[in-house]
Amino acid sequence: MKKIAVIMGSDSDLPVVKKAIDVLESFSVPYEVHVYSAHRTPNEAADFARNARKNGFGAIIAAAGMAAHLAGAFAANTTLPVVGIPVLSGNLGGLDALLSTVQMPTGIPVATVAVNGAANAALLCIEMLAISDDTLAKKLEEKRAADSAAVLEKDKHILEKL
Amino acid sequence: MKKIAVIMGSDSDLPVVKKAIDVLESFSVPYEVHVYSAHRTPNEAADFARNARKNGFGAIIAAAGMAAHLAGAFAANTTLPVVGIPVLSGNLGGLDALLSTVQMPTGIPVATVAVNGAANAALLCIEMLAISDDTLAKKLEEKRAADSAAVLEKDKHILEKL
Amino acid sequence: MKKIAVIMGSDSDLPVVKKAIDVLESFSVPYEVHVYSAHRTPNEAADFARNARKNGFGAIIAAAGMAAHLAGAFAANTTLPVVGIPVLSGNLGGLDALLSTVQMPTGIPVATVAVNGAANAALLCIEMLAISDDTLAKKLEEKRAADSAAVLEKDKHILEKL
Amino acid sequence: MKKIAVIMGSDSDLPVVKKAIDVLESFSVPYEVHVYSAHRTPNEAADFARNARKNGFGAIIAAAGMAAHLAGAFAANTTLPVVGIPVLSGNLGGLDALLSTVQMPTGIPVATVAVNGAANAALLCIEMLAISDDTLAKKLEEKRAADSAAVLEKDKHILEKL
Amino acid sequence: MKKIAVIMGSDSDLPVVKKAIDVLESFSVPYEVHVYSAHRTPNEAADFARNARKNGFGAIIAAAGMAAHLAGAFAANTTLPVVGIPVLSGNLGGLDALLSTVQMPTGIPVATVAVNGAANAALLCIEMLAISDDTLAKKLEEKRAADSAAVLEKDKHILEKL
Amino acid sequence: MKKIAVIMGSDSDLPVVKKAIDVLESFSVPYEVHVYSAHRTPNEAADFARNARKNGFGAIIAAAGMAAHLAGAFAANTTLPVVGIPVLSGNLGGLDALLSTVQMPTGIPVATVAVNGAANAALLCIEMLAISDDTLAKKLEEKRAADSAAVLEKDKHILEKL
Amino acid sequence: MKKIAVIMGSDSDLPVVKKAIDVLESFSVPYEVHVYSAHRTPNEAADFARNARKNGFGAIIAAAGMAAHLAGAFAANTTLPVVGIPVLSGNLGGLDALLSTVQMPTGIPVATVAVNGAANAALLCIEMLAISDDTLAKKLEEKRAADSAAVLEKDKHILEKL
Amino acid sequence: MKKIAVIMGSDSDLPVVKKAIDVLESFSVPYEVHVYSAHRTPNEAADFARNARKNGFGAIIAAAGMAAHLAGAFAANTTLPVVGIPVLSGNLGGLDALLSTVQMPTGIPVATVAVNGAANAALLCIEMLAISDDTLAKKLEEKRAADSAAVLEKDKHILEKL
Repeated sequence: MKKIAVIMGSDSDLPVVKKAIDVLESFSVPYEVHVYSAHRTPNEAADFARNARKNGFGAIIAAAGMAAHLAGAFAANTTLPVVGIPVLSGNLGGLDALLSTVQMPTGIPVATVAVNGAANAALLCIEMLAISDDTLAKKLEEKRAADSAAVLEKDKHILEKL
Repeated sequence: MKKIAVIMGSDSDLPVVKKAIDVLESFSVPYEVHVYSAHRTPNEAADFARNARKNGFGAIIAAAGMAAHLAGAFAANTTLPVVGIPVLSGNLGGLDALLSTVQMPTGIPVATVAVNGAANAALLCIEMLAISDDTLAKKLEEKRAADSAAVLEKDKHILEKL
Repeated sequence: MKKIAVIMGSDSDLPVVKKAIDVLESFSVPYEVHVYSAHRTPNEAADFARNARKNGFGAIIAAAGMAAHLAGAFAANTTLPVVGIPVLSGNLGGLDALLSTVQMPTGIPVATVAVNGAANAALLCIEMLAISDDTLAKKLEEKRAADSAAVLEKDKHILEKL
Repeated sequence: MKKIAVIMGSDSDLPVVKKAIDVLESFSVPYEVHVYSAHRTPNEAADFARNARKNGFGAIIAAAGMAAHLAGAFAANTTLPVVGIPVLSGNLGGLDALLSTVQMPTGIPVATVAVNGAANAALLCIEMLAISDDTLAKKLEEKRAADSAAVLEKDKHILEKL
Repeated sequence: MKKIAVIMGSDSDLPVVKKAIDVLESFSVPYEVHVYSAHRTPNEAADFARNARKNGFGAIIAAAGMAAHLAGAFAANTTLPVVGIPVLSGNLGGLDALLSTVQMPTGIPVATVAVNGAANAALLCIEMLAISDDTLAKKLEEKRAADSAAVLEKDKHILEKL
Repeated sequence: MKKIAVIMGSDSDLPVVKKAIDVLESFSVPYEVHVYSAHRTPNEAADFARNARKNGFGAIIAAAGMAAHLAGAFAANTTLPVVGIPVLSGNLGGLDALLSTVQMPTGIPVATVAVNGAANAALLCIEMLAISDDTLAKKLEEKRAADSAAVLEKDKHILEKL
Repeated sequence: MKKIAVIMGSDSDLPVVKKAIDVLESFSVPYEVHVYSAHRTPNEAADFARNARKNGFGAIIAAAGMAAHLAGAFAANTTLPVVGIPVLSGNLGGLDALLSTVQMPTGIPVATVAVNGAANAALLCIEMLAISDDTLAKKLEEKRAADSAAVLEKDKHILEKL
Repeated sequence: MKKIAVIMGSDSDLPVVKKAIDVLESFSVPYEVHVYSAHRTPNEAADFARNARKNGFGAIIAAAGMAAHLAGAFAANTTLPVVGIPVLSGNLGGLDALLSTVQMPTGIPVATVAVNGAANAALLCIEMLAISDDTLAKKLEEKRAADSAAVLEKDKHILEKL
């Protein structure tokens, strides 16, 4: 199975990124975690992206805050799908990171998830791998069914919580 | 090859969505185009999503404006990757459609691209298919090289434009 | 009397939604409370909406955060009035939930109240029932008079608070 | 049948408000149209609201732009449901009118629709009347079915439009 | 000397409004404090405004949050200058109150100060009275000189704070 | 009678500022018009403000766009009331000019009106002069009555416009 | 004299960037103009930045729209001052480009000017060169004086324009 | 070596500004720290700016919040480069200070950094001095290399942090 790269722009993003790693673990999808900065380590970030496909990666998750260029910097150097997680940092509600991640120019897409939406970034990568992997697709269906059942279970007991 | 579904919430979105179709055509990726509304045809939209994987689709592109629920409504009914295009409509600059598309809850990801970013939505789907399709991956690399060469060509002639 | 449905997208919304329930209780208006997610339990949500009128409901209150599709998903499946409560969640001040709830396309209205405005959502439903229920209308007038008197009482004692 | 009041803050809002009137006409719901300003004719606006219930109205639609106080001013003087249409005016995309209309304090709800969402304001009022009017409810269902069929018809012919 | 009316929409606004009162006290400008709500006590608010000039007031300060209509409601009923204080309430940073207060339609001005800018609201009223009151104008100049001196004193000692 | 100073940051603001001048003319209030820039002519702007009171001015209107410092620069150099008109310029809807004008620090108030709200800026100054000028106050009341009558006249004829 | 690099992300930015070039010309400051894209030509952009100092450049101006990474990409690869021009593109008023340019992480500054503020970007670079170049400083002073005189000239003739 | 002026609008900005001072210290760049307010001490601020070049300064850093005019007020009175730090103050996320600082009119540039981005403001000034100072340029390169190495060191140990 192809690996997922999970890259954060700063190790202070780890509490957010951890939720992506937990999802990948729960699906037994192989992954690598790195700290690369689009601005402080531009060469290493570009090198990683350029070699990602031949190094066995299927998709790249990039998490960064503020003027969040990390996902775009990876996308500029690979044709693997790049998923961007805008990370809340500072006081603009993550709007700076969201717009910096999602408003990419034509030709270089970044698949953007919600501000701090790390779990969904991982699920999105798994969905990509599952396009051609029926076992993984079945696991995704099972997780959905479990999530759905959990909501219905909460529905049954909501009156007790009032 | 898996097909890409290109769904728009209203046929008034066609001028935007057309750019996605053009990209899919240029890569010879098979696709289907539909008009389904999350609100006016909720059943048909849900049915399409539920059957998309077994009907040979690999990913779904959903384009909608304002309180843009279409991508989310598809994502709720399939575990295929869903790419959301926030469509500019009205006077809030597309911010309503962007937030309605990207701020999805945990468990149901939507891969969001820029406001009106239809070409990138198609490229993202092709990147997903190319994870396990080396021919398609090579075509993506060639397009990147061509895009890059076009920029450098413009660089050479920029002084003439002044 | 017709019942009011109070639906929340997640039981974490209960502290907000509780204010709606308290208002309904104080007016002795019958109600049902449920947890349904537009994304995790799309079928149950749609079923509930489709059957709401014949099950004796007069209006539906839907509370959800972020890309808040719940009210819209109900509105797509019923012609009962649907009242949407945008719930604050994350760091965008509830603007994402507000725009996702209020910016509905023509044909499928959602009566939107303030971010976290659950008490007003309930009052709005009671006002709807009171269009053809003079007793309920009288109770609404009494509550208004009491609210007004409370303000004037505070006015009398404001100097003591300085 | 109860009448619907359609009030605009300025006759320059008529092109927007016209869409509400058209919907009321198409459902044969009786209505009255007025121009009252919360700021220029505060007494007349308050008088109209105070007497609306006894004058046979079932709901009030109020359309205004900028610091849009009209819906709130009506809501302060009646316990009938008040539907607010934030009207686009100036260059803030209608955000000023939206926030001025929707962010009402506890006790005085305004059912807010999308910026310039006049058709939905009328539909919402009809939905309110239809809570206790099965004939009207049936008409609403028929309109929904027609809207749905129109989308599916467009879906059939979308390829011809490419 | 004309009195200044200091009105708040809710006694929960008192901590903000207190700063206005302190400034009026420090300038020995007579004032009255009231709690009136544009929505819960519309009649009392309108009456107060209509009679303010003949009751000896020179200007009215109105503080309110969210869909802050209080200043506009006063301005609609008097031709005295009305100063609006947008009060922070909820999670939109006070932007709702600011736009609801400042974006008034032509003919009915509200002199708007910063979000929670109560001290400046009082200073503004004093500046208005001082147009034709040289003693008051002199006091304003003295306060400015004192404020300026305080900054320069802090400048002298800033190195000690490092 | 005290004069009103009407200052614009650039003569390109004249179409906006013209509405203020028209109002002052219609009330026969004496005024002076100037072009001073807070940034290009800081000395002249400061000098004007410092001498405004002794030169017979009662209030200053300052209109500027973008990082609109003009009103604040005047307010820093006079204790006369300064009214700021945020002028729309560029593509941020005037939000930059609005926040730059209204969010003044404690001690230096600027009475801010709506984006491009020049007519209200003039009315506000007239209201200030009218605090101690009963003739002017009467004229303001007459204008209000005329404005109100104009709305009611439009109300009478609205059906003809449908 | 050190050269100024003027880089645009796309030749569609030329009408904006032209204003920077005109300013550099008017000061006889040597410059080079290039089209490089942070995303389509990441290697060429990085190479240019890495070699800029030794190639005789004193500062770099980078203009880009949307998720405007160009200035940041240059700043990541040089310690020369980089001036970023957020270019208006799309419908978010340039807010996306502004936040993507200005909200840089600690360690990698970008000197950001106003949306489309190309003339100021050039002036800023000239001010940098003028720190150690008295002739250039004198020219800047002369331009300021001329700008100031132009405003005062307009002030003299403003009444004629009414 | 030219000195850097570090000016804050209020000593409450010191915790933010301290990061700029620390950077200047670490590069052994001479500096002066002052508290001047654009509004409370306009004369002192203008005098400082007017004399800054001849007093040996090479650049000015100005930090202010809300309607942040300080940087613009300095820029209006000097042709030295002025770097603006928008300081977070109040509840609008610093957007008011950012727009007030960056949206300067043509002719008077302010080099704006991120909200609270004081360290980058200092680095930017050092980069300006380093245009013609190879020793300083070398120090900047060394700091960049150290920052880069620190990221790569964190990358090596990220797995231990999970």
